[in-house]
Amino acid sequence: MLAGVKGVKMKHDFCYLSNPHATELFLRYFRKDFRNEERLRRVVEYYPSQNCALAEKIAAFLAVTQKTHSLSVSHSKEGERIQAENIFVGNGATEIIQAVLQTLVKPFVGVKLLQTRRSLTPTKILVPVPTFSPYLEFASKDVSVIQHQLRKKDDFRLNRAELLTQVRKEEPDTVVLINPNNPDGGYIEVEDVHGLLTQLRHVPTVIVDESFAHFVAQKIGHATSLVQKFPNLVVIKSLSKDFGIAGVRLGYAVMSAHRVSALLKRGYLWNVSGFGEYFLGLLNRRDFLRQYEQSRQKAIRERDEFFVELSKIKGLHVYPSRANMFLVELTDGSQAADLVVAFLVRHGIYVRLCKDKIGLHGEFVRIASRSGVENRRVISALRAELSV
Amino acid sequence: MLAGVKGVKMKHDFCYLSNPHATELFLRYFRKDFRNEERLRRVVEYYPSQNCALAEKIAAFLAVTQKTHSLSVSHSKEGERIQAENIFVGNGATEIIQAVLQTLVKPFVGVKLLQTRRSLTPTKILVPVPTFSPYLEFASKDVSVIQHQLRKKDDFRLNRAELLTQVRKEEPDTVVLINPNNPDGGYIEVEDVHGLLTQLRHVPTVIVDESFAHFVAQKIGHATSLVQKFPNLVVIKSLSKDFGIAGVRLGYAVMSAHRVSALLKRGYLWNVSGFGEYFLGLLNRRDFLRQYEQSRQKAIRERDEFFVELSKIKGLHVYPSRANMFLVELTDGSQAADLVVAFLVRHGIYVRLCKDKIGLHGEFVRIASRSGVENRRVISALRAELSV
Repeated sequence: MLAGVKGVKMKHDFCYLSNPHATELFLRYFRKDFRNEERLRRVVEYYPSQNCALAEKIAAFLAVTQKTHSLSVSHSKEGERIQAENIFVGNGATEIIQAVLQTLVKPFVGVKLLQTRRSLTPTKILVPVPTFSPYLEFASKDVSVIQHQLRKKDDFRLNRAELLTQVRKEEPDTVVLINPNNPDGGYIEVEDVHGLLTQLRHVPTVIVDESFAHFVAQKIGHATSLVQKFPNLVVIKSLSKDFGIAGVRLGYAVMSAHRVSALLKRGYLWNVSGFGEYFLGLLNRRDFLRQYEQSRQKAIRERDEFFVELSKIKGLHVYPSRANMFLVELTDGSQAADLVVAFLVRHGIYVRLCKDKIGLHGEFVRIASRSGVENRRVISALRAELSV
Repeated sequence: MLAGVKGVKMKHDFCYLSNPHATELFLRYFRKDFRNEERLRRVVEYYPSQNCALAEKIAAFLAVTQKTHSLSVSHSKEGERIQAENIFVGNGATEIIQAVLQTLVKPFVGVKLLQTRRSLTPTKILVPVPTFSPYLEFASKDVSVIQHQLRKKDDFRLNRAELLTQVRKEEPDTVVLINPNNPDGGYIEVEDVHGLLTQLRHVPTVIVDESFAHFVAQKIGHATSLVQKFPNLVVIKSLSKDFGIAGVRLGYAVMSAHRVSALLKRGYLWNVSGFGEYFLGLLNRRDFLRQYEQSRQKAIRERDEFFVELSKIKGLHVYPSRANMFLVELTDGSQAADLVVAFLVRHGIYVRLCKDKIGLHGEFVRIASRSGVENRRVISALRAELSV
């Protein structure tokens, strides 16, 4: 709303979480490929491919990145490739969250789940907070949302023992793990996710949201390959953040084949646009992936440099993050809302006030990591504001 | 599947229902507007606007077309404009059909509906057949789909008295009217829709799908303005067909404000892409609308010319259509499947075999009306095949 204040011009959007280098890469391909008039006409005029065909493109992408890139530390056996039948492609991860919460997080999904369910208890979903709000908002109204409070004293890192204790007490039907978490960037190593999944085998559904996984480290692990071992696992992945294409609307999820079928029976016909399908084509091009990998590494380096610089500023506590954003707490007694306004009015920089984040109490803002040049503007602005 | 046969090349897709002149118009604007690098970057990189903001653009479009264009015969009172709060914007009409059938076509939506419902009976949806299959496929599994058979002796036109008789007998919770209907192009005049709605006031939900309404005639009527009078009415409108932009994925629905709220509470965050939002911006530009109107009139003329020429060919019965497709029955004893293959192999023309259409028995194909030049190729091909 502040962006609409007279005379205020937002020049740098640090609310927004993406990799700007990847956006530029996409735009270079887009401009070149769509110089071809006929190609653009086909994308605009015709219906895009359906979910199964798009899932093949994601499967090929996952296979290539597992073999040739540092993108993924494979936890699957040699040659064990994630199949298209295990992949649901969505119009952004938010569509997938909505679909999974409203279709799968219900009693009586499939025979196996039926056997493990305690009948006649209300459906419960356990979500660590603070986190990405759709997990708290999109559940059906007959589902009870149980918050698992992440503690400030733990830097909002997930305490696995405490999570398991609450799971034993509440007996939820669904447990959600956002990894890395938003807004704090807290990360659970894939080995520990594996350990948790072993402990959560009796829970009908475990959702692991890896939307920020590409920012974790040079070599990263995905939980996707664990779907074969844990049929209750649903891995959700946005493509908006790492590839910098939120406007295109794309995400995917990896889960058991019968769950993908259950979703597709509900519809999701042509849910990805022609431009989304074009992007999935890029994911199957090695030249694109090679350049993307460079942009990814660059974003990680810049995020780490940003952390070092942010941490030097007095009056702040910066929570270590493996995502491309930092949760920043004001420790000098100033108000987060004042900082947000001052940033916007005096520096044209928009950072996210965290007052509306459930489970987060205090003076917090969330600051995205963008390009090194842009990040340095934030550092200068913070120095100017906090030295006042 | 035939398109993949070795040596077979599909040159003209007459399965596909759109206005090719409108596609060309969109592409001209797209190329011009996105010469601006920054504009393209914004569309790709950032999250698009949310549903309420996009609904404002549709509301402005509907207001302008009601005032200045022949697009719409207004049934609303002077100055009675459709409000954004009555509009739900979708990622294509199929998303809206899915959303409406799975969210609204349920018992206990709102207090008023509750009062009119017969409790404890299974939820029923009545759908005329043959029609667009998602209306038969997307209902929740606890909803019973009742088919209202359109009769060949009536040219598959809806017989209102028969529909009302079946409604009295079955007492459905939802009645669907596709107007014009797909695949036959049968049309119910807006006055008659008004009459039907008066008779169907006791039915909790009446869906009128007007996805092909722009092809009806020079001056057309929309049922959208009847939503104020009939709170049980939901009007669904694809933008893929008339504007020739199926790849962009866009549609909207007009319904009571509390139903729009009910849908938005389920999610639908960022369900329209940045390119979809760009298109909605075009709908607010008078220069674009003026040129679109020309392309629409042209498509109608070509459809009518196509009907005259198709009707001259012996061995066929062509059902009169107010949409941009014709349901064609082979009356010379030949098989529709053979014609589809021969068309593809010998002419590179792909027409839709209707064997899978529920409620349609016989040798039928559906042929789109495209540009005059393309339509004439179909006429030549039909003459060649049917004179053999």
